[in-house]
Amino acid sequence: MTLPEAVRLVEVGARDGLQNESKTLALADKVRLIEDLADAGLRVIEAGSFVNPKWVPQMADSEAVFAAIKRQPGVRYTALTPNMRGFERALAAGADEVAVFAAATESFSQKNINCSVAESLERFKPLMAAAKAAKLPVRGYVSCVLGCPYEGQVEAEKVREVTAELLAMGCYEVSLGDTIGSGHAGSMAQLLELLLKDIPAAQLAVHCHDTYGQALANILVALQHGIATVDASIAGLGGCPYAPGASGNVATEDVVYMLQGLGIDTGLDLQALVAAGERICRVLGRDNASRSARALTVSKVV
Amino acid sequence: MTLPEAVRLVEVGARDGLQNESKTLALADKVRLIEDLADAGLRVIEAGSFVNPKWVPQMADSEAVFAAIKRQPGVRYTALTPNMRGFERALAAGADEVAVFAAATESFSQKNINCSVAESLERFKPLMAAAKAAKLPVRGYVSCVLGCPYEGQVEAEKVREVTAELLAMGCYEVSLGDTIGSGHAGSMAQLLELLLKDIPAAQLAVHCHDTYGQALANILVALQHGIATVDASIAGLGGCPYAPGASGNVATEDVVYMLQGLGIDTGLDLQALVAAGERICRVLGRDNASRSARALTVSKVV
Repeated sequence: MTLPEAVRLVEVGARDGLQNESKTLALADKVRLIEDLADAGLRVIEAGSFVNPKWVPQMADSEAVFAAIKRQPGVRYTALTPNMRGFERALAAGADEVAVFAAATESFSQKNINCSVAESLERFKPLMAAAKAAKLPVRGYVSCVLGCPYEGQVEAEKVREVTAELLAMGCYEVSLGDTIGSGHAGSMAQLLELLLKDIPAAQLAVHCHDTYGQALANILVALQHGIATVDASIAGLGGCPYAPGASGNVATEDVVYMLQGLGIDTGLDLQALVAAGERICRVLGRDNASRSARALTVSKVV
Repeated sequence: MTLPEAVRLVEVGARDGLQNESKTLALADKVRLIEDLADAGLRVIEAGSFVNPKWVPQMADSEAVFAAIKRQPGVRYTALTPNMRGFERALAAGADEVAVFAAATESFSQKNINCSVAESLERFKPLMAAAKAAKLPVRGYVSCVLGCPYEGQVEAEKVREVTAELLAMGCYEVSLGDTIGSGHAGSMAQLLELLLKDIPAAQLAVHCHDTYGQALANILVALQHGIATVDASIAGLGGCPYAPGASGNVATEDVVYMLQGLGIDTGLDLQALVAAGERICRVLGRDNASRSARALTVSKVV
């Protein structure tokens, strides 16, 4: 197996994760989570989202979160910004990086952000220009790359187009989201083989959901294709695997357990990650969705 | 990726699975489960265990199970047989294949079957001779191949020795068990690279537990090394993933979802497997540990 020597984890638990939890956390608990994640060695942490609080009430306090966190040198605290208004708020709050998002299918784009894929890309242009002027890196997300809740199958060529456009617009990296988790090792390999014809692996990340239990196998396939940036969510926040319709972000601890086993450098302290995940799960009153975390917590007791 | 064209699933839910569930099933429910599994296309089904019922009360009715099941042509109904007494019972019951088991560590062997690894292999010799005389194929299991609850790390060389001895004694295949599920893609690759120097891939199977969430990634690594026989347990029977200390057999449905996605022939009907798993979980009063099954059950409703 040819694998990257090091992998960069993008921790999405405090944003993508918490945004999809039914319980809204107190500010102090969010701040503690983000600080714990940095203490465990994470160097890219999604810390908030500057969207309309009417739509995502869990993220209404993102300004306060950015103001309250003790920042560690070398850590990028990032924010999701759907439009110029969000970008201006993120800039004022001191985000180190922002992210924009588009879908790989028209149906998902319409239902999620009420416009076509082309329109969504068009709307990002002023934001991209403003970010360039402010010297803020912009990350792109593409959702539904391996399956769509409305259309089922997704054309890999469409994923390639949207990804290429986001990169052409100035995103330094695009994260490929298997939003419904229905992707498998076969579809992940096919998608990456197409994308890597034009796009360097260094500009791609994978964002896998574990809804079908396939996330780690899919990430392994991505690593074998040279992808060295992986999104993950502490304790699998953002979809309880025991609830119907769970979104099921892959758990950071499970990814790190695999990466360490493969001898890949992550710079992370797995026990500290497990402790951070256990703590936030207690606060949320939910089970830990990381199987590695559960196993390591038990085996410490034995 | 070079992968096998077809994979043979060995379904262990009705034995390894049920043996590790806290609730003991009624005979009719076991029979129904085994028949459902055959109806879904499984061709090798562990149907019972002829051990001392004092130690494994869940399997005390294995004779009755073998007597009651409607057999499908082309399906092998197999049984675990720890010794000659068990073998004679299995033979009388009409098992199509029997299995013997040894450990890769001395501590596990002592705690599990109260003798050394060498002694356990020695004890199988009369059984192997009797099986040969009766023309019954014998499968070997090696437990703790990637981690031991008592010794931690396991020497791959020790796994190779025990595997080679079981094959030399007459086992047609050895199933490599990651009993505590602590193996990862790295240790699986290392183990297989050592074993495959001497042993053809066709004589090896993998038996992965999902305790650390690594099972599918480990199975993918095994497939990439040419292994084409995979053990799995319907609905992940044999260890509730939500309970501390869960053993966590990998769920058949999750494996099949991945294999079908890779375009690998399994001869299985995934929806029928999901239905069989859902039914047995209702009878046992437990959650379905297969993420694919949960996702597919939900998406059918939507």
